[in-house]
Amino acid sequence: MARQIYFFGSGQADGDATMKNLLGGKGAGLAEMSKLGIPVPPGFTITTEVCSSFYAAGGKLTPELQAEIKANLQRIGAIVGTSFGSAASPLLVSVRSGARASMPGMMDTILNLGLNDAIVQGIADLTKNPRFALDAYRRFIVAYSDIVLGVPRNRFDSALMAARFETAKRLGIDGSRLNGAELERRVPDAALDEEILRKLVADQKKIVADATRSPFPEDPYAQLWGAIHAVFASWHNARARVYRGMHDIPESWGTACTVQAMVFGNLGDDSGTGVAFTRDPSTGERRFYGEWLPNAQGEDVVAGVRTPLPVSKGSGDDANSLEIKMPEAFAELVAIYQKLELHFRDMQDLEFTIQSKKLYLLQCRNGKRTGRAAVRIAVEMVKEGLISEREAILRVEPESIDQLLHPSIDPAAPKRLLARGLPASPGAASGQVVFNADDAERRAGQGKAVILVRAETSPEDIHGMKAARGILTSRGGMTSHAAVVARGMGKSCVAGCSAVSVSYEHQTMAVTVYDASGHPTEVVTVKAGDVITLDGGTGQVFLGAVPTVPASLSREFGELMVWADKVRKMGVRANADTPLDARTARNFGAEGIGLCRTEHMFFDEERIAAVREMILAGDVTARRRALAKILPFQREDFIGVFQAMAGLPVTIRLLDPPLHEFLPHDQPTLAALAKTMGVRVEGLERKNEELHEYNPMLGHRGCRLAVTFPEIYEMQARAILEAACDVAAAGVEVRPEIMIPLSMTKRELDIMKAIVDTVKEEVFTEKGRRVDFHFGTMIELPRAAIRAAELAETAEFFSFGTNDLTQTTLGISRDDAGKFLGAYVEAGIFAKDPFTTIDIPGVGALVEMACERGRAQRPGIHLGVCGEHGGDPASIRFFGTVGLDYVSCSPYRVPIARLAAAQSALLLDTKGATVETTR
Amino acid sequence: MARQIYFFGSGQADGDATMKNLLGGKGAGLAEMSKLGIPVPPGFTITTEVCSSFYAAGGKLTPELQAEIKANLQRIGAIVGTSFGSAASPLLVSVRSGARASMPGMMDTILNLGLNDAIVQGIADLTKNPRFALDAYRRFIVAYSDIVLGVPRNRFDSALMAARFETAKRLGIDGSRLNGAELERRVPDAALDEEILRKLVADQKKIVADATRSPFPEDPYAQLWGAIHAVFASWHNARARVYRGMHDIPESWGTACTVQAMVFGNLGDDSGTGVAFTRDPSTGERRFYGEWLPNAQGEDVVAGVRTPLPVSKGSGDDANSLEIKMPEAFAELVAIYQKLELHFRDMQDLEFTIQSKKLYLLQCRNGKRTGRAAVRIAVEMVKEGLISEREAILRVEPESIDQLLHPSIDPAAPKRLLARGLPASPGAASGQVVFNADDAERRAGQGKAVILVRAETSPEDIHGMKAARGILTSRGGMTSHAAVVARGMGKSCVAGCSAVSVSYEHQTMAVTVYDASGHPTEVVTVKAGDVITLDGGTGQVFLGAVPTVPASLSREFGELMVWADKVRKMGVRANADTPLDARTARNFGAEGIGLCRTEHMFFDEERIAAVREMILAGDVTARRRALAKILPFQREDFIGVFQAMAGLPVTIRLLDPPLHEFLPHDQPTLAALAKTMGVRVEGLERKNEELHEYNPMLGHRGCRLAVTFPEIYEMQARAILEAACDVAAAGVEVRPEIMIPLSMTKRELDIMKAIVDTVKEEVFTEKGRRVDFHFGTMIELPRAAIRAAELAETAEFFSFGTNDLTQTTLGISRDDAGKFLGAYVEAGIFAKDPFTTIDIPGVGALVEMACERGRAQRPGIHLGVCGEHGGDPASIRFFGTVGLDYVSCSPYRVPIARLAAAQSALLLDTKGATVETTR
Repeated sequence: MARQIYFFGSGQADGDATMKNLLGGKGAGLAEMSKLGIPVPPGFTITTEVCSSFYAAGGKLTPELQAEIKANLQRIGAIVGTSFGSAASPLLVSVRSGARASMPGMMDTILNLGLNDAIVQGIADLTKNPRFALDAYRRFIVAYSDIVLGVPRNRFDSALMAARFETAKRLGIDGSRLNGAELERRVPDAALDEEILRKLVADQKKIVADATRSPFPEDPYAQLWGAIHAVFASWHNARARVYRGMHDIPESWGTACTVQAMVFGNLGDDSGTGVAFTRDPSTGERRFYGEWLPNAQGEDVVAGVRTPLPVSKGSGDDANSLEIKMPEAFAELVAIYQKLELHFRDMQDLEFTIQSKKLYLLQCRNGKRTGRAAVRIAVEMVKEGLISEREAILRVEPESIDQLLHPSIDPAAPKRLLARGLPASPGAASGQVVFNADDAERRAGQGKAVILVRAETSPEDIHGMKAARGILTSRGGMTSHAAVVARGMGKSCVAGCSAVSVSYEHQTMAVTVYDASGHPTEVVTVKAGDVITLDGGTGQVFLGAVPTVPASLSREFGELMVWADKVRKMGVRANADTPLDARTARNFGAEGIGLCRTEHMFFDEERIAAVREMILAGDVTARRRALAKILPFQREDFIGVFQAMAGLPVTIRLLDPPLHEFLPHDQPTLAALAKTMGVRVEGLERKNEELHEYNPMLGHRGCRLAVTFPEIYEMQARAILEAACDVAAAGVEVRPEIMIPLSMTKRELDIMKAIVDTVKEEVFTEKGRRVDFHFGTMIELPRAAIRAAELAETAEFFSFGTNDLTQTTLGISRDDAGKFLGAYVEAGIFAKDPFTTIDIPGVGALVEMACERGRAQRPGIHLGVCGEHGGDPASIRFFGTVGLDYVSCSPYRVPIARLAAAQSALLLDTKGATVETTR
Repeated sequence: MARQIYFFGSGQADGDATMKNLLGGKGAGLAEMSKLGIPVPPGFTITTEVCSSFYAAGGKLTPELQAEIKANLQRIGAIVGTSFGSAASPLLVSVRSGARASMPGMMDTILNLGLNDAIVQGIADLTKNPRFALDAYRRFIVAYSDIVLGVPRNRFDSALMAARFETAKRLGIDGSRLNGAELERRVPDAALDEEILRKLVADQKKIVADATRSPFPEDPYAQLWGAIHAVFASWHNARARVYRGMHDIPESWGTACTVQAMVFGNLGDDSGTGVAFTRDPSTGERRFYGEWLPNAQGEDVVAGVRTPLPVSKGSGDDANSLEIKMPEAFAELVAIYQKLELHFRDMQDLEFTIQSKKLYLLQCRNGKRTGRAAVRIAVEMVKEGLISEREAILRVEPESIDQLLHPSIDPAAPKRLLARGLPASPGAASGQVVFNADDAERRAGQGKAVILVRAETSPEDIHGMKAARGILTSRGGMTSHAAVVARGMGKSCVAGCSAVSVSYEHQTMAVTVYDASGHPTEVVTVKAGDVITLDGGTGQVFLGAVPTVPASLSREFGELMVWADKVRKMGVRANADTPLDARTARNFGAEGIGLCRTEHMFFDEERIAAVREMILAGDVTARRRALAKILPFQREDFIGVFQAMAGLPVTIRLLDPPLHEFLPHDQPTLAALAKTMGVRVEGLERKNEELHEYNPMLGHRGCRLAVTFPEIYEMQARAILEAACDVAAAGVEVRPEIMIPLSMTKRELDIMKAIVDTVKEEVFTEKGRRVDFHFGTMIELPRAAIRAAELAETAEFFSFGTNDLTQTTLGISRDDAGKFLGAYVEAGIFAKDPFTTIDIPGVGALVEMACERGRAQRPGIHLGVCGEHGGDPASIRFFGTVGLDYVSCSPYRVPIARLAAAQSALLLDTKGATVETTR
């Protein structure tokens, strides 16, 4: 039979860091530390294999296993000099679960296991501190009852409350006038004296006995068997099961269980506890950084009841630093952290406890860090010779560098949180609230910083979004119009903030403010002109102006990007519609434009009149007349974009949205428009009604517009090719790609190609020169993916429009998904919002199918993606596996995509290997 | 080299009826008739292979072919006793194209080829009828110029108009006061005299010469080469190409070309022409039925300028019947028709001409017939021993029997056509116009027949639709709410009638009336209470009451259905929501309910209040309270349905539509509702706003409702299972199937199954009995089809919801498709409306994928379809090929589906064989 238990302690261990599968992350880490000679409290880990056989054996711990556990407890006792179950010299232990990967829903930690009435008394005698002993006991009872016995934690609230009342009375405080929170503040846990605690323990035991119809287990072994049982059972609970289902974690993996001797940092002033990082987790600076508390337990540091003190000198409170207070322990800690960082070759997050001057390490793991720190640490470790460039690339979570590219909220600044929405586009922005695009433009013109607040935005609001510092919407998801456009502009946006109710009439927004537990507490009314601050990276909305820290790209960042570009195989392009966007994209390293939307160009004030004239035209002749007015504008747009992207490909998507998006819908604007155009307002209303669609997403748009009105695409093709000829004539290299939206049959593409080819011959003859260009299509409907082979007969390239492909494949409107997508992610139906990370088994399967079929028909067909997923690291990894030639994303996400593409290439290189990233 | 030309004439022929591929349908038919000894004018057919090599050879007729044609012309001349190109004894010919299958866009017929000035004179001399000769000549010039020379027919209009003016002047009519139509009526072609015709011919020739810069070809051989060239070229024209692409007809098939001696029915009173059917094409009665005209050309019979006379005695005008007027020719015709019907074993449509007492057959083909006739003919022919039962099944076009199941417009009745919409649900209905559901119900309650007219309908209108005789909408397609519900109810419906503009405010509809060429002529205003008549089978709307003929199912129909049921392999179920629908369906032969929609049950007046209470509920408790009120109603519904379908399966789909469909949206109804419910109208408005969706098709509906509000499905599952227990307790066999809508992941299904299983145990315990039932899912999203294997782990059956699957796979909203789907069909992008006949290469591919994957996971998984396509014969054929277990359709389409399923089985049996149907 395989070994069931791995012991560690006193500089030795049966296991090591490579045995994560068998011992879990925690167990393997403790074994490794012990082996390295680092002082860890002794303990042992029951393997994941036992967990698997535990269930197979009907959820029982075998007598053999129990015997082995007892033997190992004796080994612990021998090292520590105590004995499990002994009142005279008691050994207390912690019990923890630990799977290969940490998993929500799994049992956490039970501390101080092994306590009963007699042993508490023994500890009180030994430590001369009965309060300490009783406090540990009452905490243990609650934790054990909750986790192991299934008596929820809140069942004990009233007993604790009664203890506080009693204490208050003794202290002369009128507790009856205080609410719970106030009572807790006035009568903290530390105020409960020995007598009160003794009574509280008795009360708690009665609660357990009533709930379970059985007394609280006094036998330390019974406690231990129960705790181990709970660890293994938690592997099989519903939440863990769902999580595994979502992440393809096999049930057979199981969890390990680690039992370890307790050490106490709260035994007096020569004890203490703390956490530390081997480098600054905020900046990445190479300095030892940590906090500690004398005479405290680990949870006190985290809980924030007492203000922790610095570990090292030089942080303003040198006198209280560990370095000064306990120089020996500090010196030992420094030696250990250096050893550990060198050993694990990454920044470490350490937990330590000093019990009566003796230092113990309780945990050591790769430390969490900000994006800025991740980049600096990775690059500096390469220079220090600790890791390779390839490792450095894999060490930085691409998403985390987003914060480097935008201004951010000053974390130290005081602020008042108003509401939370979706973090739709990162960056921090403060400004006066305005409620429509025209006001935004006007006030911005007066030099004011403004935040545009709308229930939702539409293409008509573009000029206001341009003028605003940030955008806040009360409706719409991560891929709503506001979110997509804001990301494209690199502007802060909080979307779908449902606590905000906008009244355009009163020019106010009413914000319902909620407390931490989700109860509404008040309604704050914000008027036009009031200042708010958005954090688009977290979705937070603050009242007033909160100071922000500007974006700055470090030298290390540049170096990392150079390494990434060396290894990645996929190209990275940007979605950009204007010369300005194009230049931004190029500055961020874009190697072309993967999606240039022509419709945004239609909204400019000078053009929208002609666009509307075109829509209202009664026949082809009138439509052509209106289009002729738009042509010169479009040509100029393309000239600008081609110049900005000299030498690089520019994929231009012909008109996509339904025509009704270009007409106003509110009465005043309609009336004004009717006057300007010299038509009757009824005619405009009728047109609006005629163009109205029940499901615009599935309506008369994309190339369907050109099947009914070919002259629209004729004009656009002409504008593109004339611009290309003009730019080429000026000696600039142009590489246009004309892309058809929403196609699904070869015949559609053939009709579109015929339009383009006819225009091509005319333009090239007129201009006296020919320009090479490519003709291709978006793949954004399931039918297009299914019939990709046919489409590839005509199309020279495919670009996956994964936004629409997700909407149609899943039958989910991204603008309406807010009502249920949260519940879907919560219920484990989707691992992530499928509009953020591509749904690989569904939408991804269609992408893969289209790639295969397209290549079978046209080997070497150029394949890319231009949906929002093109900027999402997890999705980019998938696009790498299907072998796309490039991804295209918002200009501000180009660096993220470059890094993610590099990681995708490295991960593909080491297929099958588990390569860790910093997350 | 293969034979290029097949001759026929004087009782012989080189080809026969089996050679359709080589000679085309017409050529093979003429050869067969000639071989049977039936008098046909002699001629010859140039094979389809020549057409193929013609293009390969650069579009030229080879000298060898020309020589052979000349030789065959001499053979014709030898038989007829004339000579092609001779003025003294001229031979004129017709030239026709003929592919294997008739194809739109192909060249039709050129008559009287071989005429020039000299030959016209020769004919004038021979016939002593110069008017006859000149009239033939001027018609030939126009036809030839149009078809062969590319000078459009309308270029000659002004010349003919001038001839009429000149004639009018001579007749003393003031032509300048008449419009074109009036002029033509006052001065018909027959009024143009010899001199005028001679001038007209000269004018026409000048027009041709001007347009082509070349004189009209006088050489008969040049005319012939041109005509043959045009036949072959028409195979390659754009329209034919598109049609072939759509129908998978290979380009290599080519068309044949038949050249045949002309015969003239207009040479005097001993000549004539006519058409006849071997059985009555309207009723199917076995009697010889036809019409003829003495001294006339074939086109005169069709054109309706003169009233044709009966061929046989017994039709009221015996004196003028062919039987009396030309007894020899009639006797010969009778012998021929009997011979032909026996020979071809089907009802024949004959064209004949009598030239100077000599009878000629010009065409013989399977005759078109009404559905009623098709059924009677097929069944009687089986009894006569002419055909087998299986052949009888294949002889009836399933779609054609639809007219047997509904009342129809009396074809003989006078009527005034107002407008045309989509033929959304067959049947004829007259009634007073009402503009809302309440009025419909009220007036119907007063015993009035009403037609409900709406811009569109919604579930709120159901009670009005029930009360109305027919439904007319100005918006929406073949699968709009109005269309689907009306078909379900078996009620006449004309949908998407865009000429109708409804004003609810004025309680009127303004109908723009168009003439035949599509120009608006007037606007008719119809008020509430005015009577209109709908023909839901054609989409026509008439002013006033038009008499209708009631539906009646013949004995023959019943026999045919019995035969169909014997051979078909797929089951046929019905989509039915109520006990009444269920009984109707069962009467029509449904073998179960494939789709019982529970939401229609929600709209009943007694329940809708509770439904709205449920929607407005602030929390689960309030929601459960409201649901508890709905439960007894739902249970009663299911009891009724289970009883009606005793012993047969009933598939019940849990709630599908988004909740906003159940709230009113107009201000008055909202205000009234607020009052009834004792809530503020602002609350209702806010709820409406909160529930509003941009794309409801892709919104919060289907099982998504139950992910967020599981209590809804709990209530429904309880109602179903309680009803099942109650009905079973009464000794009636129940076979419930619970179906989840809009699922796409196994996890969703697992959550739904857990809901159902929990309720199941409760109900079975409460009721003290267990009832077998199945749990399954709709497949109506692309992702569901892709992940079908996983879904089949949980689902015991799949039912394809091909409406929604089409909407999502193609990205087309069926309610919005009207704006472009017409253009799509016209441009050949879709062969048919994909909401009528399933798009096999796209949607069909997903259906097939889901079938394969579902079966791989769960062999024997039960597979059906419940979308609208379940009642479409062409789609049913496809469902047969993928091996579905059943189709489900509207009750009124069940007989159609039974027949189509039988045909599908027969066609699958004879895979690869081309089995003809009557169409």
